[in-house]
Amino acid sequence: MTYNQTMIKAQTPKGFRDFLPREALKRKYVQRIIETTFASYGFDPLETPALEYAETLTGKYGTEADKLLYLFKDNGGRQVGLRYDQTVPLSRVVAQYGQDLVLPFKRYQIQPVWRAENTQKGRYREFLQCDIDTVGSDSCLTDVEIIACTIDGLKKIGFKKPQIIINDRTIFDSLGLSKKEIIIIDKLDKIGEAAVIEELEKSGRKSAQELFYSIRSATKTDRLQEIFTALEMSNFVEGLDFRFEPFLARGLDYYTSTIFEAKILDLMTPLSVAGGGRYDTLIGTFSGRDVPAVGIAFGFDRIIEIAGELSLLPTFNTSTTMLICTMGPKNLDLSLTLADNLRNDGQINTEIYPDPTAKLDKQLKYANKKGIPFVAILGEDEVKTQSVTLKNMIDGKQTSLKISQLKDIADYVKEPTLV
Amino acid sequence: MTYNQTMIKAQTPKGFRDFLPREALKRKYVQRIIETTFASYGFDPLETPALEYAETLTGKYGTEADKLLYLFKDNGGRQVGLRYDQTVPLSRVVAQYGQDLVLPFKRYQIQPVWRAENTQKGRYREFLQCDIDTVGSDSCLTDVEIIACTIDGLKKIGFKKPQIIINDRTIFDSLGLSKKEIIIIDKLDKIGEAAVIEELEKSGRKSAQELFYSIRSATKTDRLQEIFTALEMSNFVEGLDFRFEPFLARGLDYYTSTIFEAKILDLMTPLSVAGGGRYDTLIGTFSGRDVPAVGIAFGFDRIIEIAGELSLLPTFNTSTTMLICTMGPKNLDLSLTLADNLRNDGQINTEIYPDPTAKLDKQLKYANKKGIPFVAILGEDEVKTQSVTLKNMIDGKQTSLKISQLKDIADYVKEPTLV
Repeated sequence: MTYNQTMIKAQTPKGFRDFLPREALKRKYVQRIIETTFASYGFDPLETPALEYAETLTGKYGTEADKLLYLFKDNGGRQVGLRYDQTVPLSRVVAQYGQDLVLPFKRYQIQPVWRAENTQKGRYREFLQCDIDTVGSDSCLTDVEIIACTIDGLKKIGFKKPQIIINDRTIFDSLGLSKKEIIIIDKLDKIGEAAVIEELEKSGRKSAQELFYSIRSATKTDRLQEIFTALEMSNFVEGLDFRFEPFLARGLDYYTSTIFEAKILDLMTPLSVAGGGRYDTLIGTFSGRDVPAVGIAFGFDRIIEIAGELSLLPTFNTSTTMLICTMGPKNLDLSLTLADNLRNDGQINTEIYPDPTAKLDKQLKYANKKGIPFVAILGEDEVKTQSVTLKNMIDGKQTSLKISQLKDIADYVKEPTLV
Repeated sequence: MTYNQTMIKAQTPKGFRDFLPREALKRKYVQRIIETTFASYGFDPLETPALEYAETLTGKYGTEADKLLYLFKDNGGRQVGLRYDQTVPLSRVVAQYGQDLVLPFKRYQIQPVWRAENTQKGRYREFLQCDIDTVGSDSCLTDVEIIACTIDGLKKIGFKKPQIIINDRTIFDSLGLSKKEIIIIDKLDKIGEAAVIEELEKSGRKSAQELFYSIRSATKTDRLQEIFTALEMSNFVEGLDFRFEPFLARGLDYYTSTIFEAKILDLMTPLSVAGGGRYDTLIGTFSGRDVPAVGIAFGFDRIIEIAGELSLLPTFNTSTTMLICTMGPKNLDLSLTLADNLRNDGQINTEIYPDPTAKLDKQLKYANKKGIPFVAILGEDEVKTQSVTLKNMIDGKQTSLKISQLKDIADYVKEPTLV
């Protein structure tokens, strides 16, 4: 370090995380599955900025949620905030670019969101959301496709028993529940029936017990009936557990009718990994004209966590397949040429050990530690015969191949990694 | 909209951008090329959070750059800041996880960074950086590999004439230049020689003209000599323009020796699209122990812009290949089954028109506007014969195929899109 600087403690801010290569590779693998599934249902990508004007964000999520917004003044003195979800930015986009968008507008969005959560609850302040939404149609079929795509994605990640629970917020409306009461009902899973009833009564509801009874005996609305009929006729839900759950509430303010949640029953304690619903009036708060919309957000971090617990994901060490051990500076040109050929014609991710004077043993140790499955040794003997010694770092076997026989090298390297 | 809410103007914050699907698809395409190239050189992904503690960021980039940091107090009252680049977070990571990292640590990182730039200069406040860095080796070969990978990536995007200019900051040190003077030299391209000399003299340098002469007559350092020798023996630089440029300064404080920049000469006015260098003391400011490091950042947004101007990128309308036109609610089950088969077995991105009562004409218009190349019509006649009418929206041709012949459908759809 230079001496005019004081040393700074290296630390990640509380509630935030670094993803080192092994973890980052795993996340990329799962993200790719989700993204491919989204595209297969006809959703196209959208990206919005990390910062929004504060007034775009506030008043959309509910009083409790608003407290978790990261709001601050930018360098020009304007009040701005970090993206809290992807539904409000989408609604802003639809209102802003109305004419340029083809409706129904189907988009997916995979970006981090920020919430100033209490980290003691094991929550993160930065996490990735994977959203799909269809804007501009109130057809039940759009709700059905969102649900179908969710199931499909979860199955492709490897979950055996995803369960979808579905409700309709209009049931709460017809029972005269306030937004505040819906938030209390939403806590049912966490705090149990007795505590919810107590809280409802504290907040002014006279006969909370009776209200509970009314909710329990609620039946499907016409919209739900239609959604269930379509879901039942789809063969993608074969063996799937999807059911009407009149107590499902969802915390956010903006939902207007259908709401749904995906749980993973593969675990002893089922956990929710995705949630969403219909929000037919949110876009109107920006454009003055209501546009129907429905969507879901996958909680990526929880999916990774559960998939890890259930050992559904491959182990990734590195994306490098080959290390070229350069024995002596004299062989550098051959090493560089071989690397270039392997990378471009062979499509093999290749690195060169950066210090040509290092002993072979040290170079092999590096490959081992990093988890690189193959090394190519280019010593003086090899240079004389224009060949390369290939070593499989997993079984320790070695073979010698001509440098010019790139296809043979590629075949040798590719086969065993499939095992 | 609900009546207790006031309408909010839908606008993207100044200096920030939304990427609608066509633009987002194009960006994804280029990002994939860059990412694949990075991995082919043995770089593994790393992700760091958007927020860092303020003390991690300040004092690293230089006085001018520090003013562009987005700094604010988080909800717990701690001073934090948005990621300004990816080099400082990497250095923080290396200091923090030292023991867990295998050295040399080769990582790539593709994340947005935020700078409170003056938007009048056509600059963005949020932009994507694509970085590669090798940490833990001072071998010239690591500098060479960074340069090679940069050229390779730019060529794969389609640029014909990327030029790399290379310098060594130690030349400035030996001429006694201060950090402040280096920043002034860095403006040479923008403001010209006369203005630079004037500024140097204003800042206290007595014989700026002489200094200019000394810089112009500087020769390659030993390190540069070694780098050029290795570059010349690599066949990947075939026909490439790389040269020593003693006036190359690079704005940031933390560089210690090799510095480089990639320019695109395909344009009349060459523009810089990537820049980097060696920073052997930055990590030491976190760990107290210097660790040598070298890397480069691709300016993704400028690459997209120039590649667009040069017509190097394909046009993307949508990732959807097929729209199923559902003619009447009675055919819904068949539509859902066909969609599922196309998506999963056929690997064809498929959407279903959400309103089964809409006229065929309206549904076709939707496909056309969105740019979906094929539609599958499932009318009553088709249901009777268990067939589907496929229409190519580009040439207008139609054909009829059995629904059960999924392979035929997939073949029909896949061929013309290759044209």
